[in-house]
Amino acid sequence: MRRCAAWLAHHLRRIGLENVRVVPTRRHPIVHANWLHAQRRPTILIYGHYDVQPPEPLNEWRTPPFEPVVRDNNLYGRGACDDKGQLFTHLKALESYLKTGRILPVNVKCIFEGEEEIGGSVGLKRFVAQNRKALHADAAVISDTRMLGPGRPSIGYSQRGNLRFELEVRGPQQDLHSGNFGGVIHNPLQALCEILASMHDAEGRVSIPGFYDRVREWSAREREYMKRTGPQDAAILRDGGVSQPWGEAEFSLYERVTIRPALTLNGIAGGYQGAGIKTVIPSRALAKLSIRTVPDQQVKEIEDLLRDHIRRVTPATVTASLRTLAVSNPALVNRNHPALSAAAAAYRRGFGSSPVFLRSGGSVPAASIFQKTLGIPTVLMGFALPDDHIHAPNEKFHLPNFFRGIETCIWYLAATAKMLDARPQQNQEIEKWNA
Amino acid sequence: MRRCAAWLAHHLRRIGLENVRVVPTRRHPIVHANWLHAQRRPTILIYGHYDVQPPEPLNEWRTPPFEPVVRDNNLYGRGACDDKGQLFTHLKALESYLKTGRILPVNVKCIFEGEEEIGGSVGLKRFVAQNRKALHADAAVISDTRMLGPGRPSIGYSQRGNLRFELEVRGPQQDLHSGNFGGVIHNPLQALCEILASMHDAEGRVSIPGFYDRVREWSAREREYMKRTGPQDAAILRDGGVSQPWGEAEFSLYERVTIRPALTLNGIAGGYQGAGIKTVIPSRALAKLSIRTVPDQQVKEIEDLLRDHIRRVTPATVTASLRTLAVSNPALVNRNHPALSAAAAAYRRGFGSSPVFLRSGGSVPAASIFQKTLGIPTVLMGFALPDDHIHAPNEKFHLPNFFRGIETCIWYLAATAKMLDARPQQNQEIEKWNA
Repeated sequence: MRRCAAWLAHHLRRIGLENVRVVPTRRHPIVHANWLHAQRRPTILIYGHYDVQPPEPLNEWRTPPFEPVVRDNNLYGRGACDDKGQLFTHLKALESYLKTGRILPVNVKCIFEGEEEIGGSVGLKRFVAQNRKALHADAAVISDTRMLGPGRPSIGYSQRGNLRFELEVRGPQQDLHSGNFGGVIHNPLQALCEILASMHDAEGRVSIPGFYDRVREWSAREREYMKRTGPQDAAILRDGGVSQPWGEAEFSLYERVTIRPALTLNGIAGGYQGAGIKTVIPSRALAKLSIRTVPDQQVKEIEDLLRDHIRRVTPATVTASLRTLAVSNPALVNRNHPALSAAAAAYRRGFGSSPVFLRSGGSVPAASIFQKTLGIPTVLMGFALPDDHIHAPNEKFHLPNFFRGIETCIWYLAATAKMLDARPQQNQEIEKWNA
Repeated sequence: MRRCAAWLAHHLRRIGLENVRVVPTRRHPIVHANWLHAQRRPTILIYGHYDVQPPEPLNEWRTPPFEPVVRDNNLYGRGACDDKGQLFTHLKALESYLKTGRILPVNVKCIFEGEEEIGGSVGLKRFVAQNRKALHADAAVISDTRMLGPGRPSIGYSQRGNLRFELEVRGPQQDLHSGNFGGVIHNPLQALCEILASMHDAEGRVSIPGFYDRVREWSAREREYMKRTGPQDAAILRDGGVSQPWGEAEFSLYERVTIRPALTLNGIAGGYQGAGIKTVIPSRALAKLSIRTVPDQQVKEIEDLLRDHIRRVTPATVTASLRTLAVSNPALVNRNHPALSAAAAAYRRGFGSSPVFLRSGGSVPAASIFQKTLGIPTVLMGFALPDDHIHAPNEKFHLPNFFRGIETCIWYLAATAKMLDARPQQNQEIEKWNA
């Protein structure tokens, strides 16, 4: 992580950014830089993250995850897309200006973190809170989201929050022989399955009492807008590689992954996992789960509801404990804000087509931190494709999107130069949430 | 495995056994030897297995699993008890005779396999079937079970069968980002939990329809015998290191682990299992489970019932497949057979106290193979203690039990010399099952 941060800082200096600093946090450093010579022009905060997801399962990678390989116009490797590759489009845009005209059309502040994938961007949150003035800007831009498809750009204006948990169930003091004890001792691994199975009903709704109580119901107008602009059910199924949908039948799939919350089981480790079978009753079992939250769910309340539910369904024969690993809030931007209009104009030049304004099911903690702490909107200007295998084996970045992304970033900086003169249209539904 | 088999063969030759052979099977070799100079005396078949359970989880071992360490009169190491150590008691007994009087009181055939822990003793089954005549004996003896406690010997006369399965659930073609797809795709890991949770009801009974249909109901007399001789509930709970029992309330804990079948989840592997959380929806998830069967459950039928149940509860949103890894049948011996009386007499001399006749919850496939193929009873003469951590980290063999075990095996061979003259008492309930 340190070598990557140092490399990034060196690269920022080399392309002409100023005041480049690698700032230590409790875990992975933040890389900060700026260029502030565009007097009376707006200031854009460019964010990205240089950390990546773990590469496992390793045996499913066609080429090694940390050796970049170009195949069929795609760059393969962990982080190619999320988010090293997308972060890099901004650097190349800045470099283009600074190597040709020697100036940028706007003031720029860069902030790159290394704690996005481990959840919650804890170091970033602290750093932004402590450097409010130094980081002040008119808008932030992040390229860490997906397009609808090739040649179909999109701008994210909404993301879900993300609460990450570890649930441990303990039973006997040590692993036991399933012959000697099978039938008289509640197997913690089985109890864990029973607890986890209790979290959804047969229709795919989260069955934790109160879970949906605060979930915002959007107006017919907003849902109509989403229906017009968002991906069709069939497209989402195709991207996911499944034939059958699942979940809340009264919502479209696009709605289910954006304006509806979700509870996902991310991993279970328990008992014997090698070849064949070891006839053991494990003494403990561990699950990793995450909850994607939406407005107006409250972190603390959801955490309490989950904890209460687990307490209620856990039988006296085992003990269950829940640890919260990371939290981030949902984020929402008025899609009529001039920073988003600038991004739309940039896409038209970079990709030759108008972007749609999309909600994202994922979470970029930075966007909610910038909204809450700096009071500025974040433009989610993603260049990833739905089949880029983000977080999965064989992650890739489609190279034409990399190059068009650089051009789009170039045009974006140009377009934001006049942003301060624009008068934004209101979108009360969204602005009310941000107030 | 081959080195271990060769070592064992060498040792058998060294202590005076004859016709020592290492017989290859499709997997791990069988070690066979005999000594047949006791004319007009019975023949005893001595069985053991030199393979062991995997040592995982490695970090819970106080000393390395494959470096024998003596601590507080216990020998620690994987296999110390199950079954290398217990197998060794018989070799030391044979050696005692052959190094002193140069003859054994009975004819002896030894058969040691290396496929017990991987399930089903497939190579042994084939070898016994093909060498029926060469292996013929009057009784078999196996030391691979537990005593009730220190100084409280027991003789096993009943074991459960064991069916081992792998259940795989598949969903999307690849791992997906839980932000982008959480809420619209049925998570195979969650579906696996739901399927597994459906296999027991809230009272701890197996809820697979028909599962108990053929389970033999034992007479009040047999259950009374079990109550008198078997461990109390409190003792079983203490051995298991739990405070709360679980399972079929209408049976004692001893009954639940011996005359009642059990379905145990032995392991789950699915999704991300490293540090922190990877926000992934895994494309597949795998469970390892085993069913301990009892008379008169039929392997094929139980397999079908499980398969049908899985088919019934698996939703159309995922696919589930079940693989049978190994099967073994229950075994049952008339506890009035003279071979068992001989064992009781041997225990009285070796341990200074009378053994109780116990049912075991575990499975020794060899016993059912010898019963079915050779038509001979097997004496389960165990020297393991309940806290020997069989199949678990820090497996041990209590050294006083090793030495008393050797003496008991010496006396056992002496006692069986007159076995052919004895007239066994009948136990119709058990004999009917074996017929």
